[in-house]
Amino acid sequence: MTNYPGQVDFLSTDAAVLLVQRIGLTELLRGLVSALEQDFSRWEDFDKTARLAHHTPDGVMELMPVADASHFAFKYVNGHPKNPQLGIPSIMAFGALMRADTGAPILLSELTLTTALRTAATSVMAAKLLARRSSRTMALIGNGSQSEFQALAFVRLLGIQSLRLYDIDAAATDKLIHNLQTQLPGVQIQRCSSAAEAVQGADIVTTVTADKANATIVSRAMVQPGMHLNAVGGDCPGKTELDAAILPDAKVFVEFAPQSRIEGEIQHMPEDFAVTELWQVLRGEQAGRQHEDDITVFDSVGFALEDYTALRYMHALARQHQLLQPLALLPQLDNPKNLFGLLLPPTAQRIDPAPTEAHRHAIPA
Amino acid sequence: MTNYPGQVDFLSTDAAVLLVQRIGLTELLRGLVSALEQDFSRWEDFDKTARLAHHTPDGVMELMPVADASHFAFKYVNGHPKNPQLGIPSIMAFGALMRADTGAPILLSELTLTTALRTAATSVMAAKLLARRSSRTMALIGNGSQSEFQALAFVRLLGIQSLRLYDIDAAATDKLIHNLQTQLPGVQIQRCSSAAEAVQGADIVTTVTADKANATIVSRAMVQPGMHLNAVGGDCPGKTELDAAILPDAKVFVEFAPQSRIEGEIQHMPEDFAVTELWQVLRGEQAGRQHEDDITVFDSVGFALEDYTALRYMHALARQHQLLQPLALLPQLDNPKNLFGLLLPPTAQRIDPAPTEAHRHAIPA
Repeated sequence: MTNYPGQVDFLSTDAAVLLVQRIGLTELLRGLVSALEQDFSRWEDFDKTARLAHHTPDGVMELMPVADASHFAFKYVNGHPKNPQLGIPSIMAFGALMRADTGAPILLSELTLTTALRTAATSVMAAKLLARRSSRTMALIGNGSQSEFQALAFVRLLGIQSLRLYDIDAAATDKLIHNLQTQLPGVQIQRCSSAAEAVQGADIVTTVTADKANATIVSRAMVQPGMHLNAVGGDCPGKTELDAAILPDAKVFVEFAPQSRIEGEIQHMPEDFAVTELWQVLRGEQAGRQHEDDITVFDSVGFALEDYTALRYMHALARQHQLLQPLALLPQLDNPKNLFGLLLPPTAQRIDPAPTEAHRHAIPA
Repeated sequence: MTNYPGQVDFLSTDAAVLLVQRIGLTELLRGLVSALEQDFSRWEDFDKTARLAHHTPDGVMELMPVADASHFAFKYVNGHPKNPQLGIPSIMAFGALMRADTGAPILLSELTLTTALRTAATSVMAAKLLARRSSRTMALIGNGSQSEFQALAFVRLLGIQSLRLYDIDAAATDKLIHNLQTQLPGVQIQRCSSAAEAVQGADIVTTVTADKANATIVSRAMVQPGMHLNAVGGDCPGKTELDAAILPDAKVFVEFAPQSRIEGEIQHMPEDFAVTELWQVLRGEQAGRQHEDDITVFDSVGFALEDYTALRYMHALARQHQLLQPLALLPQLDNPKNLFGLLLPPTAQRIDPAPTEAHRHAIPA
């Protein structure tokens, strides 16, 4: 393999699906959690920045870059909560991986499915540090695209045995129950008629709702001592899920504080509200859960490092499984300073005769 | 066409080459100048930001987003001046275009060739406003990948009849002369032994050098009254081409002042150094060149709006010429909330049986 193949690896959505089917979702998630733990543990290696967001009346479009000494990665992702009414997913994503030494792109990848995988894996990474080890029951509020991934990850990797489901869209819960019944036989599934009912008796409360609003999916009164709140849906200014009154009574953990203060549940709190970054707990530099009665909150917004990890992890697996396609994204040049030579036919005849009046205006401006 | 085709148009480098060959480089550039003028004239329609740059010892990797009410666009581009020693282009780029109403990607495109086209077209747009109408001689300093595009654009669209060439790499000048002799017969080409010699008698001085250094390619003493300086190569902190002493004696024009103050020649000047944005001149709200003796500088750094324009322009042309390929970048879903359903085989059997010890550790972490 040369430094500059001129072609880029492409991981399509179809190929990513095949990869998950071949490896098995549980094993793939288990490996991804481990890869995330490794990358978060070398936190200082990364050039980090809050993501760049363009807000519209309908949603948000974001670019999420991150880099270490070896690679530069970025993801494009949108969030348009009304899309499903048009038959369109509310979240779509893709991204790329570049070599830092030459800047050359090496992978272009679908990231819609991969974002669902890495979000669930990140939730597991946090819950391993923050939830009570005895946790067996999880409330799952918001039963859209992300919900099956959270359910399966927490059942298979953390020992959850009972799920309590709620969504304002009953059809979304129907879909989730159908998928879980085929995929998670033996797990107890309870359909609830409100978020309050779902939270009752839960050890872990996972919120993955889509509305772009300062919502109160979980009120202070619903939260019991010892609970772990895995707050995934609130992830941009004006889009939150928790009653702000929960936060002063809880220990709050975040991915990257500068971004979370803009986008997370803690956007409601003063700039100096104390939070702990996950990497500090992973490395044992800060405590996670200290007491059985602690209320812990993972104020998840989604950080670019998770996509860096997922891009490298999926790339390596897809290569092993020969699921990458070549993509002609870059010029193939004999002389790297002769970009213009691309345009010349092999005979080196003129490609661009002086224009005549006849075709001078052929191309509409 | 539905709102969500599930597939994205892909414009490969090969297809972009075919497009230029079919339309002709001059006609394509002429149309692109016109499209740029239209988009720069509606400046207030765009959500603009300085690009996001990650600097390394070897170069820079950048993301350049911009949006209006209809579309969000971004480009990835690197700049690694030592790449050609490894057989790799110093600049590689690709980008994408999204619908703002749904966030759905609609085009993924090569932008290495397209960046060369839009950079030359932007230089022409500026020179039409700033250079003397009588300009016939252009110095072209830096004879790498961008140089043929600048030469051809200025000859064909602005009436340049004589080119004075210089590069510290004689082989680069050899390559440029070879390409120009086949493509621009009748144009006078002078090989020069220094930048100072190249600048002598020039009406327009175009600098397109690659070194990441505060270089003095053009000194104050070389600059004569009436010259237009098209300073293209200086485009990031610590990478400039002009003697700073030129700037106070010149009228300086930029694309987007907040970005240019970080990246352009004017990084040497105080924050309040007066500059004019091109759109102001295009709309007649500010003067361009006022006197034959004015020294004008287009302090070009490359702005995301140019890529937005180029992406939309190339997309429309490539569609007309049937040069787009479908790319499976997004999931195709019957139910937009059932992303998980992608993973299920048609028979809805379990895809992920409870792991046994045997394959629990099959995937390396």
